Amino acid sequence: MNTFAPLRVGFIGLGTMGLPMARNIARAGFPLTVSSRTLAKAEELAREFRGGKAHVAAARRPSDVATASDVIVSCVPDAPEVEEIHLGPAGTIRNARPGTVVVDCSTIAPSAARSIAARLEEAEVKFLDAPVSGGQKGAVEGTLTFFVGGEESAIERARPVFEAMGKRLTHLGPSGSGQLGKATNQVIVAGNLLAVAEGIAFAEAAGLPLAALHQALTAGAANSWALETLGKKMLDRDFLPAFAVKHQQKDLAIVLETARKNGIPLPGVALVHQLLSALEAAGEGDKGTQALLTLYEKLSPAARRATS
Amino acid sequence: MNTFAPLRVGFIGLGTMGLPMARNIARAGFPLTVSSRTLAKAEELAREFRGGKAHVAAARRPSDVATASDVIVSCVPDAPEVEEIHLGPAGTIRNARPGTVVVDCSTIAPSAARSIAARLEEAEVKFLDAPVSGGQKGAVEGTLTFFVGGEESAIERARPVFEAMGKRLTHLGPSGSGQLGKATNQVIVAGNLLAVAEGIAFAEAAGLPLAALHQALTAGAANSWALETLGKKMLDRDFLPAFAVKHQQKDLAIVLETARKNGIPLPGVALVHQLLSALEAAGEGDKGTQALLTLYEKLSPAARRATS
Repeated sequence: MNTFAPLRVGFIGLGTMGLPMARNIARAGFPLTVSSRTLAKAEELAREFRGGKAHVAAARRPSDVATASDVIVSCVPDAPEVEEIHLGPAGTIRNARPGTVVVDCSTIAPSAARSIAARLEEAEVKFLDAPVSGGQKGAVEGTLTFFVGGEESAIERARPVFEAMGKRLTHLGPSGSGQLGKATNQVIVAGNLLAVAEGIAFAEAAGLPLAALHQALTAGAANSWALETLGKKMLDRDFLPAFAVKHQQKDLAIVLETARKNGIPLPGVALVHQLLSALEAAGEGDKGTQALLTLYEKLSPAARRATS
Repeated sequence: MNTFAPLRVGFIGLGTMGLPMARNIARAGFPLTVSSRTLAKAEELAREFRGGKAHVAAARRPSDVATASDVIVSCVPDAPEVEEIHLGPAGTIRNARPGTVVVDCSTIAPSAARSIAARLEEAEVKFLDAPVSGGQKGAVEGTLTFFVGGEESAIERARPVFEAMGKRLTHLGPSGSGQLGKATNQVIVAGNLLAVAEGIAFAEAAGLPLAALHQALTAGAANSWALETLGKKMLDRDFLPAFAVKHQQKDLAIVLETARKNGIPLPGVALVHQLLSALEAAGEGDKGTQALLTLYEKLSPAARRATS
């Protein structure tokens, strides 16, 4: 392997997060081969860069991506998709050469990440679990944070690719540790969401002036990213998804399953998971997580009056 | 009343918060009369300023403070003490002249604040409920945030005194509104505390490197004052009280009582209240609220192993 030739990069999964991440890799000058469940998406991205300095090729199958890549980034919805694109009949493992590094940015169970890493290791392919924080905004702006599990040498090989997509990488230990870090992030995100929803519901029911109160609260010990960002959206009655309830629920299910395996009870997360289940049952799973406020409003005539 | 003469200020309750607040009023140049449950404390503060430019006098009873003051600040543990110092046999109401403004910085139930305001109004004394956020650090540095309920004209009369003690005042409405604002603050503070304790307990049980993880988490959507400040103390195993469990519990009891009256259910706050009750039952009510982490560690052999 000639380490002086430019790193050839593959990208699999051109969704809300994956598409802007792949764009940033191409812009950084890496020869890029992309594939997605829908071939047209990959072809469209290739067309987007045609004629420019960057070289982007569309591939039909993950195994074709592997043929053309030294580092393969994947970003798909959940563990079954990660298994399919790497270990399935048309998976990267079919054609990946020894030493290839897979950077999986999907959020999946830590146990699934460990098992996929072990299967790829049999083909001498190095797997990094590298789930991200920062949302679509971070993906577009190239400011994602990566929680990474796996071997240090594989991280060093893929580092230029990480740098094209984000601004911070934290290596937390062996395979699965990145997912455990992301799960910790989701534990705290869930609790902060609960805090803001209950705070604003309480203030609504009390008839307080919300804008002035929000400003005072963000200046003190109650402040959080959630209060600033989701709290503002609650006040603006903006329930569009930056992060949808159903996606939060997938992540909290992973958290609760992992917590049980590790012998740690998390009653707060369990409560948020149940409240969001009620929101899903009301048909609001596609809304942003800040819609949790509306569940409290459904439960409380006083809060409902304040907003009508 | 000559509004060109310097405002004469009274201060009642020289505890952890009150003592540094009173000092800042004296330093700002207001003639100050102070009293506390223990007369010696008031005399000590008067001695501290003797010979300097500021004039501080100790008074035996709240009614003596009222004789000498245009604005009276009070800062005591709970509603019974607020009632005693203002409405009791030696209360300020005995000697306060019409137009006197009482600024009560204690955290008490909104309903209690409204009832005390109504009683003082009978003597034409204006009552402002003005609970604070910012802790002892904010009291010492004069950077407190005030949540204020009451009449605008009374706030304007007392504004120079507020400015001596803090950096932000938010007027939220009529009597009781300040307490409702502070209660909202405590709803969110409680939820953020739960989030951080569960996150760190989860990470401990998972065997993650806590310092690196904490740094990564504070850079993203999980961040909060609680994660930065209380999270750091949890990692340092520093459970000394900046804000004690028993004081958080007093405030959450007010929140839950008020929420019920206002018809808004707060399952998250109720959970935190119960978890902190368990901590109190274990004899740890005097520790800082960040000791909530240790409750999770008691429940989880995995988290306990990680810290031993």
